[in-house]
Amino acid sequence: MTGHSSWVPGAAGSGHDVDHLPYGVFAHHDDDPRVGVRIGDFVLDLAPVGASDMVPETDTFAAPTLEPLMAAGRSAWSSVRDWLTALLYDPSERTAVEPHLLPLSEVRLLLPFPVADYVDFYCSLEHATNVGLMFRPDSEPLLPNWRYLPVGYHGRAGTVVSSGTPIRRPCGQRKAPSDAAPTYGPSRRLDFEAELGFVVGTPSRLGVAVPVADFSDHVFGVTLLNDWSARDIQAWEYVPLGPFLGKSFATSISPWVTPLAALSTAWAPLPGQSPEPLPYLQVAEPAGLDIDVAVRCNGSVVSRPPYRSMYWSPAQMLAHLTVNGASLRTGDLFASGTISGAELGQRGSLLELSWGGRDPIRLDDGSTRTFLEDGDEVTLSATAPGARGGRLRLGQVTGRILPADDP
Amino acid sequence: MTGHSSWVPGAAGSGHDVDHLPYGVFAHHDDDPRVGVRIGDFVLDLAPVGASDMVPETDTFAAPTLEPLMAAGRSAWSSVRDWLTALLYDPSERTAVEPHLLPLSEVRLLLPFPVADYVDFYCSLEHATNVGLMFRPDSEPLLPNWRYLPVGYHGRAGTVVSSGTPIRRPCGQRKAPSDAAPTYGPSRRLDFEAELGFVVGTPSRLGVAVPVADFSDHVFGVTLLNDWSARDIQAWEYVPLGPFLGKSFATSISPWVTPLAALSTAWAPLPGQSPEPLPYLQVAEPAGLDIDVAVRCNGSVVSRPPYRSMYWSPAQMLAHLTVNGASLRTGDLFASGTISGAELGQRGSLLELSWGGRDPIRLDDGSTRTFLEDGDEVTLSATAPGARGGRLRLGQVTGRILPADDP
Repeated sequence: MTGHSSWVPGAAGSGHDVDHLPYGVFAHHDDDPRVGVRIGDFVLDLAPVGASDMVPETDTFAAPTLEPLMAAGRSAWSSVRDWLTALLYDPSERTAVEPHLLPLSEVRLLLPFPVADYVDFYCSLEHATNVGLMFRPDSEPLLPNWRYLPVGYHGRAGTVVSSGTPIRRPCGQRKAPSDAAPTYGPSRRLDFEAELGFVVGTPSRLGVAVPVADFSDHVFGVTLLNDWSARDIQAWEYVPLGPFLGKSFATSISPWVTPLAALSTAWAPLPGQSPEPLPYLQVAEPAGLDIDVAVRCNGSVVSRPPYRSMYWSPAQMLAHLTVNGASLRTGDLFASGTISGAELGQRGSLLELSWGGRDPIRLDDGSTRTFLEDGDEVTLSATAPGARGGRLRLGQVTGRILPADDP
Repeated sequence: MTGHSSWVPGAAGSGHDVDHLPYGVFAHHDDDPRVGVRIGDFVLDLAPVGASDMVPETDTFAAPTLEPLMAAGRSAWSSVRDWLTALLYDPSERTAVEPHLLPLSEVRLLLPFPVADYVDFYCSLEHATNVGLMFRPDSEPLLPNWRYLPVGYHGRAGTVVSSGTPIRRPCGQRKAPSDAAPTYGPSRRLDFEAELGFVVGTPSRLGVAVPVADFSDHVFGVTLLNDWSARDIQAWEYVPLGPFLGKSFATSISPWVTPLAALSTAWAPLPGQSPEPLPYLQVAEPAGLDIDVAVRCNGSVVSRPPYRSMYWSPAQMLAHLTVNGASLRTGDLFASGTISGAELGQRGSLLELSWGGRDPIRLDDGSTRTFLEDGDEVTLSATAPGARGGRLRLGQVTGRILPADDP
């Protein structure tokens, strides 16, 4: 199907052709926010399209959230995607559809769905090893459980924010190993973490595990995710119950959710798992995703983390998350953990890029960074193979650091 | 005001007189669920009362959740409590009010509010010490941060269930220290944790900390909470990111939320904090709560944890939770962590009562327990001083263990 492009001007080769079609929620002038789909540099306003006789009638898109669409389930996702593809591919639909295209520059993009529960995993062998070396220098970097299960924890759902939301530098307790006692103040080691987030559409029942094979029935799509982290707060607080205030001040996600169906040709083999996982975690290959991420700080590329290097697969995360019978809700979000490859330029956090602050990195303007400074803007972007050749461009996620609000 | 009781038969001396008035959500026959308040062994059906000319008109109570009332804020909570007290105290109101009283035995009690974010703390010095001794026998039981901050973590909001919901024994990975590798199967060390939960009504803005002094502006009320725990799953998974599947299968809360205003005379001094907390954690005394908890297993009292022994106060938990600028939402729930006193019979978990399974406890029927068996029913109850003398009875939370659903 290579070369079959939308009639929408500029869509061909943009990473936002008919093989992508990510969903988002937008506001246009003073109208109520509603659901749109991206094509080229336009948003197709889906509420009037869904109410028209162009397609099977639906009011799924009049909501200020993707939640009704997400809750509609896999067969609904599939038929909506089919009719959207037809409308945006077939030139004979142009006259009817074009009035509902809005230039991206004229809309504000909002948080695409209210997050129910947010779980963050720790799926990169390289990231877990790097953090272990820095946080626990006197012991084995990789803990004994790491190769047996995708380690994860719950984060704060209420502070998941949309791309563009400014990030206030958090205050809290910090204590360097050499300090006698902690002090209160703004974090001095503010960091990003480049991650992929998986968005649950179809819920599951309490007490019933979701097997790896059912991944695509439950997962609606994918976002980029920046798990902002205050390393000094985190290092002091995290034993024994895990990260808390070092992470809970903000987590940014992209405004566009790429449907899982758009990634059908992006699956790639996992790097290899040893020992063999327990049966409930065994997956058919290819189980990984060939997604290339780029991290920019003030426009300078500081890292290019490769998602295909991740040890644990998305379906393994979901199966593990529910193996104890924990139920899923529409709007649950689970993230991969920091994506770090084996090379220096592939590490997905400043903690790893600067090796805990020891080795500053250089930006294009000649300035250096160990951790983030006030005013810094961090942007994650990513591409994945599209089903019609070329690469899809996943929705960017960006955020700028505001100074601490310290009394 | 001692001795001033409601005209409702049986309310006097029941722990559910006009000085208590906990809120819940109930279903009666096939009617839509709605908000009620408990008085004696009755539920006052608040939707018709709120729509009548007995009180200022409100539709807050027609919802199938306490959320609208919780979101209405402290002055609304106060005026609703004032008119409820007047209606249920003044005998001249009896004729108008009595038709809206439903016997408790005729209603089903539901989850009182949808939980937004659920945070669990670790505020008992005795519990943290006991767990440290068992989980990390080769090091100091209390970690260096424990006396400087209320250690906490996020739990799974979507699996907070109402009292009476059966608890399916979870499956997962378990590994004893002597095992070479983990195995998959039902938890063999299923436990309860007796806790108090604090329910947030008034939200706060992202980036703005909530000081200790604002506790009563944000917290709507209190529930009993059982943080079911699978100790074998937890012990294997919890490093370095904290408890996850060992806790996320279910957390039970009582169907009744006791308003904070009902606990005005229950405040008691903290046992003492050393070192002195950082300024953002300093509280005016009395900052603790004189609440006596009882834990029953199949009817036998197995523990009587005293809440007044807790090291960290409720206001300190809330201030710490938000000190990094994390926002609050209506429906946020934060819990104290296991309540354990200094004596053996005051420990709030089987892990501590049986000392990791070493010392079985005996139930009234002569059987013994180290951890929970299938069919066991655990019930938490509690009392607190009421403003008119006597003690309030907090809403019980109960749950029975179902066998694992292991294929």
